[in-house]
Amino acid sequence: MSVIGRRGLLHAGLLGAGAGATAAAGWGIGQALAQDGVPNSIANPVEVTGAEAEPVVGRLPGAQRMYMLPDGQGEHHRLGGLTMTRIARPQETNGGYELATFSGLSGAAMPRHAHLATHVAFLVMGGEVQLDLGDQSWTMQRGDFANIPPGTPYGWTMRSDRGKVALFMMSGRAGAAFAAMGRPATSAAPSGPVVAIDGDALQRGTEAGDFQLRPLNGPAPTPVRVSNLLLPATPGPYVLLDGGGERFGGNTFYARNANTGGQFLFIITEGGNAGPGIGAHFHARHTEDFFALDGETATWAYGKDVRIKSGDFIQAPPRHMHGFRMMQPYNRFVGFLTPGIFETFFTRGQPGRNGVGGRGAGEGAAPSPGGISNDAPPAAPPGVDIFRMLSNSGRGPDGYPLDVHGPTKPLPPQDPLWAAAARRAAAEPQRALEQRLALLEHVDSLCGGGALRTRAPLSAELKAALALKPKASDFV
Amino acid sequence: MSVIGRRGLLHAGLLGAGAGATAAAGWGIGQALAQDGVPNSIANPVEVTGAEAEPVVGRLPGAQRMYMLPDGQGEHHRLGGLTMTRIARPQETNGGYELATFSGLSGAAMPRHAHLATHVAFLVMGGEVQLDLGDQSWTMQRGDFANIPPGTPYGWTMRSDRGKVALFMMSGRAGAAFAAMGRPATSAAPSGPVVAIDGDALQRGTEAGDFQLRPLNGPAPTPVRVSNLLLPATPGPYVLLDGGGERFGGNTFYARNANTGGQFLFIITEGGNAGPGIGAHFHARHTEDFFALDGETATWAYGKDVRIKSGDFIQAPPRHMHGFRMMQPYNRFVGFLTPGIFETFFTRGQPGRNGVGGRGAGEGAAPSPGGISNDAPPAAPPGVDIFRMLSNSGRGPDGYPLDVHGPTKPLPPQDPLWAAAARRAAAEPQRALEQRLALLEHVDSLCGGGALRTRAPLSAELKAALALKPKASDFV
Repeated sequence: MSVIGRRGLLHAGLLGAGAGATAAAGWGIGQALAQDGVPNSIANPVEVTGAEAEPVVGRLPGAQRMYMLPDGQGEHHRLGGLTMTRIARPQETNGGYELATFSGLSGAAMPRHAHLATHVAFLVMGGEVQLDLGDQSWTMQRGDFANIPPGTPYGWTMRSDRGKVALFMMSGRAGAAFAAMGRPATSAAPSGPVVAIDGDALQRGTEAGDFQLRPLNGPAPTPVRVSNLLLPATPGPYVLLDGGGERFGGNTFYARNANTGGQFLFIITEGGNAGPGIGAHFHARHTEDFFALDGETATWAYGKDVRIKSGDFIQAPPRHMHGFRMMQPYNRFVGFLTPGIFETFFTRGQPGRNGVGGRGAGEGAAPSPGGISNDAPPAAPPGVDIFRMLSNSGRGPDGYPLDVHGPTKPLPPQDPLWAAAARRAAAEPQRALEQRLALLEHVDSLCGGGALRTRAPLSAELKAALALKPKASDFV
Repeated sequence: MSVIGRRGLLHAGLLGAGAGATAAAGWGIGQALAQDGVPNSIANPVEVTGAEAEPVVGRLPGAQRMYMLPDGQGEHHRLGGLTMTRIARPQETNGGYELATFSGLSGAAMPRHAHLATHVAFLVMGGEVQLDLGDQSWTMQRGDFANIPPGTPYGWTMRSDRGKVALFMMSGRAGAAFAAMGRPATSAAPSGPVVAIDGDALQRGTEAGDFQLRPLNGPAPTPVRVSNLLLPATPGPYVLLDGGGERFGGNTFYARNANTGGQFLFIITEGGNAGPGIGAHFHARHTEDFFALDGETATWAYGKDVRIKSGDFIQAPPRHMHGFRMMQPYNRFVGFLTPGIFETFFTRGQPGRNGVGGRGAGEGAAPSPGGISNDAPPAAPPGVDIFRMLSNSGRGPDGYPLDVHGPTKPLPPQDPLWAAAARRAAAEPQRALEQRLALLEHVDSLCGGGALRTRAPLSAELKAALALKPKASDFV
C-alpha cells in the first residue's frame, strides 16, 4: 500500500467528516417518489410549536416532551448494592420505552433474570462489568454493548468500584419492577454496602412489572472478554466490543431492525466539529434520543442551544423540532430511535469497516439544510425543502416515505449561544490537523493500539483495513 | 392390536377422565423439596379475601380483579369493517396483557402490520378467516391457532360473514392502537359496510400504541388450509390446526414457554363431567384466565358458581381463589396463564398423541383437594395440604416452588348453585356410556372423520395412534 493510497483513503474519509460536502445526488434525493396511498397525516405532518415544544432542562418532565437530563440526574433508587437512576420513565415516553443507569461498587449485582416482553439494549458506561447472558458470561468495559431480546436470561455484576451500565428497556414495565426492589435514593453515585437484593425484594419486583428470576442451572460459565465486532443479521442476543457494529458513514449500528424486531435502532454517531451540523427538522412517527459518550454536542432544541457531554441525555419525541452540531475535535453519542422506521436513511451512508475510520458528520453526514440560521433571526423555510426531498427518496418498513420533515411554521427565537458558537468557529483557525489527529488517535485506540492487536487470528479483511490505517507522518 | 388392547387403552385413559382417581404418587408429590432460599412472600402467600376477592360478573371491572364477561360483552369499537370487543384491557390486567375479539363480514380486514413489543396468541372463534403471517397466508377455522411473536408481520381478512377471532396480546399497548383506529360501537356483532381502515386511521393507531404497518413487498401468497399439528420446540411464528399441539392428559399446549419467551402458556383443557373438578386454590405469581369453547364449565369464583360457555371469559388474577368443575359430557376451554411459570405442573400429565384421546379432567387431572365442600358449609383447610405438596414437588423457571396454593383463610359462604349441581350429579345415573361416546365423537371429529383422514402422508406414529382409536363396538 503506497503512501498515496493512504492519503487517498484519508482524503475520501475526511472530506465527509463533518465537512458537509456530500453531494445531494449521493443520497438519491434528486427525484421525489410518488405519494400514492400516503395519508395526509403522514405526508404533511405538523411540528409541535410554542411553549409545549420548548425543552425541559435539568429535570424529568413527567410528560412526553423534549427534555434534557444531565449525567447523574433523574429518579434514584437503591437496590441491594446498586444505585438505579431512571432517566426516561413511561410517563416521559408514552409507555414506549425506558432508560435507566445502574451504578455500583465491585460486587454489586442484579441477579440473572428475564423480561417477558421487554427488549433491552445494554451499554456499559464505565468500570468493568460482568454480564451473564444466556448461558455465557462476558467481561465488558465502557462502550461495550449487548442486545437482549425478551425472554433472554441475563444479569450483571460490577467488577470494579465505578461500574455503570445504561439500559434502554423497550416497554413501560421493567423500570417499575427494578424500582419496586429498592427504596428511593438521593444520588446516582455508587456507594456501599455491597449487599444482594433479597428474595422478597425480587418478588416485589416481579409483582410490580416485567421481571422474572431465571437462576442458572448448572455450573457458572467463566467470563470471557468481549471481542465480537460484527453485527449479526438475525434476531437473538449478542455482545459487541466498543467500536464494532455495522458502519455507514459517521453512523454505526449496534442494533438494527433485524436485531430488534423493528423496535429500535441503536446507533453510535461520531464525528469532528468542522461541519455545520444538522439543521432543524422533526420526525413525525418516531422518537429520537441523544445519549452522549464523548466530546460535546450542541443540540438545537426548538431554538435553545442545549449541550450534551458524557452521560447527558436528550429526548426528541415525535413532532419535536431538533438539530445538532458537534463541538469538539472528536464527539460521539448514542442515537436511539424508536421504532426503527428510519433505518433506510442511515444505510445510505458510505459503508465502512468495523472499528476503522468513518467520516462522522452524524445522521448519515447529510448536508445541512440551512433550516437553522447561525447568527441572524431564522429565515422562512427555504425555497427548496431538502427534508421533503429526503423523505420522498425512500420508504420505511411501513411503506410510507422516510420519516423526516423540515419546519412548516416559523422557527422560535434563536438562542444567542448557538449563534455565538457558530461565529466563534468561523473566526478560529480550522484546526484541521488537530482534528484529524484526534480522530486518528481514537481510531488507533479502537483498532490499532488496543485489544484488537492482541487478538488472533485477524480476518483477511481486518488485516487489510489495518494496513490502510494512516500514520501521523502522512500528514506532514 | 387386539380388542383387549383397545379396552386397556380406554380403561387407562378414562380412569383419569375426570374420575379423580389419579394417585398422588404419580405426580411426584410424595415428598416435599427443601425450602432453601425461598423468600417468605413466595413460600407463604396469602389469598385475597372479602369483597375485593368476589368476582365482578357481566361487566369490565376497570381494575385488576376476578371478573367474568359473557360472550359478546365488553368495550366495543368499529374499525373499518371490523367490530372489536375488548374483553381484558390494561386496567384489568395491570398492563400485562389484553384480550379482544374481532368480528366481521366477509372481506372485513386488518391490514398487514407488526407489533414491536406485543406477542399475540391468535385463535379463530368462528367463520373462515385468512391469516397473513410473515410471508405465508393461511385459511383458518374455529379452533385454529397462531403464535405471533413481536416483529412478525401479520394481518387477517374475514372470508365468511361470521368471521371472529380472539387476540391475546402480551402488552398494554396494542389494544389502544386498535381502538384509536375506530370509533366506539354498541355491539360485538359483525355488520356492514365492509370498508377498509383508511390510512389516517391506521396512523392514529400507530400514534396511540404498538402498531406498525408492514405492507407486503411482492406478490401475495396463495392461502393454504392450516394442517400443522405439531408444536415447535423453538420460538417463532407458527399455526396449529384445531386439535393439534402438545398433549399432557386433558391439557394440550398450543404455546409453551419455549414458544412465548416465558410470557404465557396457551392451553386447551378438555374433559367430561364425571370428576369432582379442581378445588379452591390460588396462584400467587401468575394470572389464570378461562376462555370457554365447548360445553359448560362451572367455575368456583371465591364461593360463587359462575358458569362459562363458548366465548365467556373469566380472569383469576394472582392471589384470587378459584376452582372449576366441568358440567357437560364434553367441555373445552382455553387456559391462558401469564407468565408461564406454571408449565412444569402440566407437563406431569400423561403425554398423549396430537389430536388423539386425552383423559381430560383439566389442570393435569390433579386429584380434587377437597377444598370445596359441595353441599355443606366449607370445612377448615384440610389436614393434608395437597396444594402445598404440589407446590413443593417441583420448581418453576424462576427457581421457586410451583405456584399453586390452597386456602390459608376460611372460605366464603358457598353458592347454593354449586352445591345443588353437585347433588344433582350424584343423584343422576352415571351416564358413563353417553359421556364416553361424546368424547369419542369429538376425538373422531378431530382426527378420524375430519381433515386428518384426507391428508397424506400420515406419519407412522400417527397411523399407530389412529389404529388405537376405539370403536363404538368396544363399549357393548
